[in-house]
Amino acid sequence: VKDHFADRLVRAVEEKGVPACVGLDPLLERLPPTVLKSVGIDSDFDARIRTSENVAKAADAILTYGREVISVIAPHVPIIKINIAFFERYYAPGIRAYHELVRQASQAGMIVIGDVKRADIGHSTTQYAFAQLGIAADPMMNEIVTPDAVTVNPYFGYDAIRPFVDLARESGGGLFVLVQTSNESAAEVQGLTLSDGEKLCERVAQIVEGWAADESLIGTSGYSCIGAVVSPRDLESTERIRTMMPHCIFLVPGFGAQGRTKDEVARCFKPDGTGAVVTASRSVIYAYQQDEARAKYGEDWVRAVEQACVDLVRDVRSATGR
Amino acid sequence: VKDHFADRLVRAVEEKGVPACVGLDPLLERLPPTVLKSVGIDSDFDARIRTSENVAKAADAILTYGREVISVIAPHVPIIKINIAFFERYYAPGIRAYHELVRQASQAGMIVIGDVKRADIGHSTTQYAFAQLGIAADPMMNEIVTPDAVTVNPYFGYDAIRPFVDLARESGGGLFVLVQTSNESAAEVQGLTLSDGEKLCERVAQIVEGWAADESLIGTSGYSCIGAVVSPRDLESTERIRTMMPHCIFLVPGFGAQGRTKDEVARCFKPDGTGAVVTASRSVIYAYQQDEARAKYGEDWVRAVEQACVDLVRDVRSATGR
Repeated sequence: VKDHFADRLVRAVEEKGVPACVGLDPLLERLPPTVLKSVGIDSDFDARIRTSENVAKAADAILTYGREVISVIAPHVPIIKINIAFFERYYAPGIRAYHELVRQASQAGMIVIGDVKRADIGHSTTQYAFAQLGIAADPMMNEIVTPDAVTVNPYFGYDAIRPFVDLARESGGGLFVLVQTSNESAAEVQGLTLSDGEKLCERVAQIVEGWAADESLIGTSGYSCIGAVVSPRDLESTERIRTMMPHCIFLVPGFGAQGRTKDEVARCFKPDGTGAVVTASRSVIYAYQQDEARAKYGEDWVRAVEQACVDLVRDVRSATGR
Repeated sequence: VKDHFADRLVRAVEEKGVPACVGLDPLLERLPPTVLKSVGIDSDFDARIRTSENVAKAADAILTYGREVISVIAPHVPIIKINIAFFERYYAPGIRAYHELVRQASQAGMIVIGDVKRADIGHSTTQYAFAQLGIAADPMMNEIVTPDAVTVNPYFGYDAIRPFVDLARESGGGLFVLVQTSNESAAEVQGLTLSDGEKLCERVAQIVEGWAADESLIGTSGYSCIGAVVSPRDLESTERIRTMMPHCIFLVPGFGAQGRTKDEVARCFKPDGTGAVVTASRSVIYAYQQDEARAKYGEDWVRAVEQACVDLVRDVRSATGR
């Protein structure tokens, strides 16, 4: 059994000296031409047509690409977040590619977050938990590797969370509950005002802290294996949410392509510099599509990704005063 | 391209004479021993150990079982809801089994709802939509069959819904947005009181109706391709939600094993008897585990499921005054 998830995460961040995470969201239409060519995808390819052959090729492309990305980022950042949506898109071969990349990133020593955003009732959520988190069985016998932690949706309340928590406690896993998301329409539901004047997402923050503060879930780092996804909106509310959730590590999306500033991101950390992990996806993994990188690295997309990863590390260090 | 989803659903309900749906949630540990034996699963089998062989066997078992269930229920009910959690549990082979069962149920003339409860931001939710709903390409070329409609989670607001809606509009698909769920802790978030005294789930109901009422989404039946998952809690709130959402077909879980009464379920329908589909899962698909059925049908689990399906049809007809 692995150590407590939060302790492992804190240690990994210390070792690499930066609380940064790269999000792997591979879109077929944005992959480097050399990768597409290597798996036999040419300009006639129509991803909408779901023949076995097409689906297998597409899954092969995102696997090939993902392997390269992991190799190049693993020395720089402690954590990777792999979004399963981009793999589910290619059905069974896509799911196989997802678990292959989870395995590779784990073997490279990274903490792996499966960005699955699952939630359901009773038996159903138990199945998701078994699928996505470690199971207390001899790990040597598990050919299929699952993430260290996953993201989950709070709309069902604790029923949808409990099976993940039970497995996390047993197997050193973790979960990040969505509190405030980074999309434009997030406030449509999350920003509704409750009867006491509080915003829904702030109440959800308190509810999640209530789940997280269970003694049996706290590691020696003082953090719980239940964390939260918090995309900073405005400085004040971010500070309030940070104060409300002392036991939760924040997974902070929106840095990079989605435009959150250093100052906004900084408020997700505690004064001692712990308590959050900043994640960026597109600005790193598609760095080769930016004009400057194209001019500098030409066809060498891997170097462009590496440079963007190094830049992310620098920016997150600077945002967090390291 | 298929006809408008709501129109197809209304027609299917009329043809079978009952607004009923069976939920297929296959748990390995509850499958009939004959099914397990047929795929080589014996009492030593440990589903927690994720070898390729174990996972393939388990997926094979739920596929075999699902095929039998579909064959036996298709003549009786117009709609099937397949919960992907029970398939994701067995990784790539499980996902393959899911799409095989979607195909079989479609070919048997059923309306198929993929109970996936997905939601994410921007690009990510687009991938889920592509994965789970029809794509406007020549259907003859699609070896992988997707559901007619899916369930989605409202916590992200409309961003997470839009890609599903766009595909639904193009391809005759549909979606059911979670409004009020049937689990015990549902009220923990959904039942929060807003500043105007309204419950969160009732506000979500209004928001979803706002999305659904878009003219381009309404079929000749008067219903939208955006429906809602509404598990009745108390009669008053169910009536309020029904009135708030004139354009939405309700998918109503909780009848059967989860204990909702006929009277509660009846309030999910409009006075003209349309506007809802009642779904039951465990009470039908595990009917062979009930003492009475065991005494009556012995090893013949398929007949027990068929009888439970016939009973469901009778109960739903009676609840809806047909």
